[in-house]
Amino acid sequence: MPNEKLVVIGGDAAGMSAASQAKRRRPDLDIVVFERSPHTSFSACGIPYYVSRVVDAEEKLIVRTPEKFRERDGIDVRVLHEVEEIDPPGKRVYVRDLKSGKSAWEQYDQLLIATGAVPLCPDLPGSDAINIFGVNTLESGLVIRRRLEKGGMKKAVVVGGGYIGLEMAEALVMCGLEVSLIDRSAQVMGTLDEDMGALVSQALRDVGVTLYLEETLTEFETTSGKVTGVVTDKRTLPTDIVILGLGVRPNTALAEAAGIPLGEKGSIRVNERMETGIAGIWAAGDCAESFHLVSRKPIYIALGTVANRQGRVAGVNLGGGYATFPGVMGTAVTKICQVEVARSGLQEKEIEALGLEHVSAVIKSRTKAGYFPGSEEITVKVLAEKGSGRLLGGQIVGMEGSAKRIDTLATALHAGFTVEEMINLDLGYAPPFSPVWDPVVIAAREVAKKL
Amino acid sequence: MPNEKLVVIGGDAAGMSAASQAKRRRPDLDIVVFERSPHTSFSACGIPYYVSRVVDAEEKLIVRTPEKFRERDGIDVRVLHEVEEIDPPGKRVYVRDLKSGKSAWEQYDQLLIATGAVPLCPDLPGSDAINIFGVNTLESGLVIRRRLEKGGMKKAVVVGGGYIGLEMAEALVMCGLEVSLIDRSAQVMGTLDEDMGALVSQALRDVGVTLYLEETLTEFETTSGKVTGVVTDKRTLPTDIVILGLGVRPNTALAEAAGIPLGEKGSIRVNERMETGIAGIWAAGDCAESFHLVSRKPIYIALGTVANRQGRVAGVNLGGGYATFPGVMGTAVTKICQVEVARSGLQEKEIEALGLEHVSAVIKSRTKAGYFPGSEEITVKVLAEKGSGRLLGGQIVGMEGSAKRIDTLATALHAGFTVEEMINLDLGYAPPFSPVWDPVVIAAREVAKKL
Repeated sequence: MPNEKLVVIGGDAAGMSAASQAKRRRPDLDIVVFERSPHTSFSACGIPYYVSRVVDAEEKLIVRTPEKFRERDGIDVRVLHEVEEIDPPGKRVYVRDLKSGKSAWEQYDQLLIATGAVPLCPDLPGSDAINIFGVNTLESGLVIRRRLEKGGMKKAVVVGGGYIGLEMAEALVMCGLEVSLIDRSAQVMGTLDEDMGALVSQALRDVGVTLYLEETLTEFETTSGKVTGVVTDKRTLPTDIVILGLGVRPNTALAEAAGIPLGEKGSIRVNERMETGIAGIWAAGDCAESFHLVSRKPIYIALGTVANRQGRVAGVNLGGGYATFPGVMGTAVTKICQVEVARSGLQEKEIEALGLEHVSAVIKSRTKAGYFPGSEEITVKVLAEKGSGRLLGGQIVGMEGSAKRIDTLATALHAGFTVEEMINLDLGYAPPFSPVWDPVVIAAREVAKKL
Repeated sequence: MPNEKLVVIGGDAAGMSAASQAKRRRPDLDIVVFERSPHTSFSACGIPYYVSRVVDAEEKLIVRTPEKFRERDGIDVRVLHEVEEIDPPGKRVYVRDLKSGKSAWEQYDQLLIATGAVPLCPDLPGSDAINIFGVNTLESGLVIRRRLEKGGMKKAVVVGGGYIGLEMAEALVMCGLEVSLIDRSAQVMGTLDEDMGALVSQALRDVGVTLYLEETLTEFETTSGKVTGVVTDKRTLPTDIVILGLGVRPNTALAEAAGIPLGEKGSIRVNERMETGIAGIWAAGDCAESFHLVSRKPIYIALGTVANRQGRVAGVNLGGGYATFPGVMGTAVTKICQVEVARSGLQEKEIEALGLEHVSAVIKSRTKAGYFPGSEEITVKVLAEKGSGRLLGGQIVGMEGSAKRIDTLATALHAGFTVEEMINLDLGYAPPFSPVWDPVVIAAREVAKKL
C-alpha cells in the first residue's frame, strides 16, 4: 500500500509551516508542495527593509530554500508549479509546470490550500502601468529595489496609509526619494482610532513624507506605458514610482471554483482545526478566514503571525495530532522610522459596529523611569466595555520600547480581563525598563476611574 | 467635630502612594506622615544608577519633595520625625522630633504602617566598620557616591548576588573599581534556576567582576575602624569598600511591640484590603506580607512595584473606596550592563518545595527577526506543571529587548493559562520587534511538547 499523500498549494509561511509540522509528526506521509514563484517561505514583512537596504541581501529574507526543504525535511517542493484546478470528488489537482509549460493531474489524500493573498489594485485608468507596485511577493521587492538602484527616480507616491504603505513610505524616504502618501481617511493607519492615528500622521510628516489625507485616487497618468502621475479628486502628483498599500484580498479563485465554501471577504471558511467545508481539504494563512476573539465574529486578517500559527495547527492535525486555532486578537505592530505603533483588540469603530458601548483613556507616560537616560515618550489608549469594564482593545504610539508592550494588552484580552484586574498585574519594573506603573497599566487605571 | 485623621508611619513609596490616594478621594481627611529620614518618596531602585552617575543628580531620584506634598497635596509630611511606639488601644503614636529631640503623643483615627525594610547585616566581627554599606536609603546612596568621588578607592567587594548586589557591582565597575562578588550559591541571582543564573554569572565575569561562588563570608578585616578586607571560608579579599547585598528584612519592630500580628519572615500580616489584624491599623510596602498567586501561599517580597501597588490599595480603602491587592507573581527585572534578566512565577526549587512536579524547556531565540540589524540573543526558560501544563514560571536572560517580555508570561500567569493556551497568544510581530514566533511562545511550545 502506498503512503498517504498530502498536497500543499502554496509554499510560503502557512504552507511550509504546515508541511514541516506534518512531516515531523508523520515521517511516512508523502508531501508535495506546489509553489508558482521561484521561492519558498520568505519573510514578506521584511520586504520594506530589503528595499531600504536595512536588510542587505535577499537571501536573508528566505527562511528556508526549496532545496533545504527537500533535503533536510524530505518535503518534495516544486517551485514554478501552478495549480490550476482542484477536483475534490476526484481528490486531485491540475498542475502546470511553468518552466516546461506541461500540465498534469496530481492525486492527493489530503489537500492544504495556502494560496495567500493578492494586493488590492484599483480598477482605474492607468493602473497597469509600469512602476506601479503592489508589495507582497519577494519578486516585487526585488524589482522595486533594482529599479531604485538603477537611479533616476526622484518622486514616489504611496497610495494607502496602512502597514505596508507606511513601511514602504519610510523605505522610500531612506532611499532619498521625495515621498507623498495619499489616504482616503482623516489620518493614516486606519486600524487605530483617529486620535492615535494622528500621532502616526505626524511621525510621517516629521520624517519628510507629504500627506494628502481625505483624498481619493481617481487615475494614474502614464507616458509610454510608465506611470508619471497620480491623480486624486483634489490634485495631480507627478511621480516616478507608485506603491499600492490598499490592503489585500484572499487568493481564493481556485477554492471558489472547486465549490469550497467561502466566508468573510471571500476567504476560505475553516473550522478551528483549519479544515474547510469539504472533508480532507484544509486551508491556512492569508487565504483562510479567522475568528476575532473579542468581537466573537469571523474576520479576514492577512498577517504573517496568523499564517504561521494557522499553518502549524493545520500541520499538527494533518500529522495525526490535535490542535486548534481559536482565533486572533487583531494584534499588530509596526515602526515608522523611530516611532513604534501597536494595536490589539477592537478599535472604536469596530466596537460601535458591534453595538457595544465603551469608555476609553489616552495617557502619556515614559518607556523607562522618567529620570533614566534614554527614557522616551509613549502614548497608550485603552478601551473597555462600559459597565463591565471588560478590556476591549489597546493602542500604542511611542518611541523605542513602546510597541511590544502591546503583548501585555493582547494577553490580557486573551484572558478576558477587566481594566480593574489589569491594575493588579505584576509586571516587570526596574528604572532601565519602565516607570513603577507600566504605561499600559496607567492607561487601564484611568479607564477604570471612568467606569 | 474635627476631621478624621490618618497617621502614616514612613514617607516612601507605599506610605506616600497611600497618603496621596486617600487625600484625593477624601479631601476632608487630615493626613500626617512621619518620616525619620530627610526625604520622602524616592526611587530606591535608582540608587545604583546614581552611584554609577548614569543618573547625575540626586534630585532626579526624588519623586516628590515633602514641600510638594504639603503644598500641592495638602498632606502634612514631617521628615526627621521617628515614631517610637504605637498604642493601639489609645489610638496614638509616640513621635520623636529628631531635630529638637522632643517627643510627644499624636492621636489617630486610622493608622498606616509603611516602615519599609532594612538590609540584612551579618553579625560578624568587623561588620560595623566604616565603608561597609547596605543600600536602601537615599542617604546610603549619597554617602557611597561621595566616598567614591573623594578618590583613593580601588577595590570593592560585593557580598550577595541578588538584584542590589549585581546592580551595585555594575555601578562600581563603571566607577573604575576592581570588583569582587561573593555568593554562597553555585550561581548568582538565586531567584533564577541555576542554569539561567549561570548566564548571569557569565555576564558579570564578562564585564570584569571576579566571582567567588559557593563561599561563605566569615568576617571583615579592619584598620582604624575602616574595612580593609573580607574574609570567606576560602580566602581573604583586600578591599576599600564593601556593599552588602544580602537581602532585606521587614522593619516591623514597632508593629511587633504593639501586638500587631506578624506573618511570613516577620512581615505584617494583612488582608486583601491591606488592613492588619487590629481594626483601624493598616500596613503596606516592604514591611507588609504579600500573597503569591501561583504558590497560593503568603510570601514576603520587598520590591518597589509591590510597595506602590499595596500603597495605592491601602489609600483607596482609607479614602473610603474599595480596592484589593490579590497578590504577586514574583515578577522582577534587572540589567547587568548589557544583559537583561527577568523572572516571574515560581522557580524550580519553589515548585519542588510545594511538592509539585514540573516540566521545563530552555530555548535560545532572537529579540528581532534573525535577519534584522540589531537582532540579539535571548534565552527563555518556561516551567509548567506536569500533566496539567499549567504555566508555573518563566525566566529570561538576554540582550536589549529581552527583559520586558516577562510581562507576557506574568500576564499569562495571572490568567492561569496552560502552555498550550500560550501557543495561541496573538502577540505583536514585525521584523524590528520579534521573530514570527515570540521567544516566550517558542519556549511554551517546547514545554507543551514534553507534557
